[in-house]
Amino acid sequence: MSSMKTVVMRDGSVHVEEVAIPEPGRGQVLVKSRACGICGSDLHIVHHAREVLDFYAEMGMLDPSLNARDLQISLGHEFCAEIVAYGPGTRQELPVGQRVTSIPFIASDEGPLGVGTTPAVYGAYSEYFLLDESLLLAVPDGMDDAAVAITEPMAVGLHAVNLGQLQPGEAALVAGCGPIGLACIAALKQQGVQHIVASDPQAANRDLALAFGATHTVDPMTDDEVALASSLAGDQRLVILECVGRPQMIPQLIQRAPEGACIVFSGIHTEEVPIKPAFATVKQLNLRFSYYYTPEEYAECLRMLASGAIPWQHMLTGKVGIDGVPDAFEQLSGPNPHVKVVVEPWRSGGLQAV
Amino acid sequence: MSSMKTVVMRDGSVHVEEVAIPEPGRGQVLVKSRACGICGSDLHIVHHAREVLDFYAEMGMLDPSLNARDLQISLGHEFCAEIVAYGPGTRQELPVGQRVTSIPFIASDEGPLGVGTTPAVYGAYSEYFLLDESLLLAVPDGMDDAAVAITEPMAVGLHAVNLGQLQPGEAALVAGCGPIGLACIAALKQQGVQHIVASDPQAANRDLALAFGATHTVDPMTDDEVALASSLAGDQRLVILECVGRPQMIPQLIQRAPEGACIVFSGIHTEEVPIKPAFATVKQLNLRFSYYYTPEEYAECLRMLASGAIPWQHMLTGKVGIDGVPDAFEQLSGPNPHVKVVVEPWRSGGLQAV
Repeated sequence: MSSMKTVVMRDGSVHVEEVAIPEPGRGQVLVKSRACGICGSDLHIVHHAREVLDFYAEMGMLDPSLNARDLQISLGHEFCAEIVAYGPGTRQELPVGQRVTSIPFIASDEGPLGVGTTPAVYGAYSEYFLLDESLLLAVPDGMDDAAVAITEPMAVGLHAVNLGQLQPGEAALVAGCGPIGLACIAALKQQGVQHIVASDPQAANRDLALAFGATHTVDPMTDDEVALASSLAGDQRLVILECVGRPQMIPQLIQRAPEGACIVFSGIHTEEVPIKPAFATVKQLNLRFSYYYTPEEYAECLRMLASGAIPWQHMLTGKVGIDGVPDAFEQLSGPNPHVKVVVEPWRSGGLQAV
Repeated sequence: MSSMKTVVMRDGSVHVEEVAIPEPGRGQVLVKSRACGICGSDLHIVHHAREVLDFYAEMGMLDPSLNARDLQISLGHEFCAEIVAYGPGTRQELPVGQRVTSIPFIASDEGPLGVGTTPAVYGAYSEYFLLDESLLLAVPDGMDDAAVAITEPMAVGLHAVNLGQLQPGEAALVAGCGPIGLACIAALKQQGVQHIVASDPQAANRDLALAFGATHTVDPMTDDEVALASSLAGDQRLVILECVGRPQMIPQLIQRAPEGACIVFSGIHTEEVPIKPAFATVKQLNLRFSYYYTPEEYAECLRMLASGAIPWQHMLTGKVGIDGVPDAFEQLSGPNPHVKVVVEPWRSGGLQAV
């Protein structure tokens, strides 16, 4: 047991490779990956590595000479894991075998590195990977591994909702009911928001939105979701959660939002987008851009999922073994019926609906 | 005394015209204009009427068939006035001759119309114009007419600062030290903000910024104003007040702002601007767009100016009689040393420095 399988994205596709099991360093823990969700951003970086690299270089976060063909990332950042071995300088308060999760970051001399998003750090589409002991959260007994893996996208949604700072009486519109939209809906319901309008062109996603707590659903191809949400908001502020993930939504929502609205944009759009700022001015819009949740928000989502308050089972549409990941990425990159697919890196097998 | 002079903008320039003195309608008051500031937006609409009309038509606020050459607006919305006569249905609590000011709006069957910004309503570059009795604020005795005229741009600045919602310990950067930038600085000082960085390429404007309460000034042509303000903010949030009024500032500040910053944009940019939303996302920026102040903010600025807390005299650089307005617009549309020029519509005479 000195080698393991890991899924590496390189040059426009993902590959299963055999590598040495990493050794936990100071303060680190070696964990076994029990389940890891496939995120839209994993699919995106496989197909748009050059664009993403250029952006990080422009931000001063990456060597601009790095070639997209040379970029290798071991993917997977939405995980449920199990403690295998402790590194030096650890307190070892949790027993070996304990199920854990954590925000997907690991400390380094250059600051925190993303687990599953950074070259040279193993992600959770691996049989084993490393985490920081100080960030570990014990998984409550009886909680499903897949539910734990859904903690991360739930935290993305909760963070976006928190940026909207909804006050009693204000209404919310969630545009796009994929995993992040559903996570926003769950967080809005948890916060007691009275009017939660969910919009998605797919009927199946609208049904999911209702299961997660939407009070109204709209097909934006046939009805005006902004008008409905505005009428429900009345004199109160409307908070729009943009979860479609297409950059054109930015100018469209700026143009269509009602006076005084707050629009929270989730998802990272590396391309340039033309906006008309005058629309934002005369309506005094507040535009917020959401990136990473806090550790507290992550822990809150783990508790919410453990409590049974969120019907995560409706969102889980497929499971796949580690050998099946390359083929699953192919399927998920085209039109497909899936919402959330979870990788089980400890086993083999192709993508199966659940 | 049945006719008066008014300044009308039409077809790319302004003209002094002789018109009938308007009759106050129900709830209205006829006032004499004692002083009215020239606003950058007055200069802008003269030269960009087509662009502004197109935008309002796109917003559904104006008939799209309206020709820019046919558009006529009697300008002037930053005023000190004096009560001349009351219309029917008024309470007449203030005596004739009382000096007054008001937010520049007047009620109509179609909702509030902007005084000095709407066709068919007389602005305050007129010998006389109409106001709503219900919006009148009495001017405190001893307050200079020009100080009263400065209330309006001060309220624009206060509103922008209020949108930034500064908390104790947070720092502010004011980019651009024209009238609106100076108004922001005055409001920030009033709110006790510890670090107020003011940036402007003109040394004279930087000196004004210090007089208004800036704690640091930067020439953005030679030094990095964002870096200085960020270092003063430390771990706290930086609030950037954009008062340059050039649309290119929007993408530039989104790219340059530090993590977690709030950028408040003043001024209305009707052209399309390309932005890179990913910069806003990874830094989780909060973008706010400021338009009109509330009546309470306007009244607060009148009180602040009356109290002597704001060195408005440093900002007042010129006065002009009504006949001199067309020539003053010519001068102010090119490079010029002025900050705020006040029209005194009750007299003749060209633009004179004060």
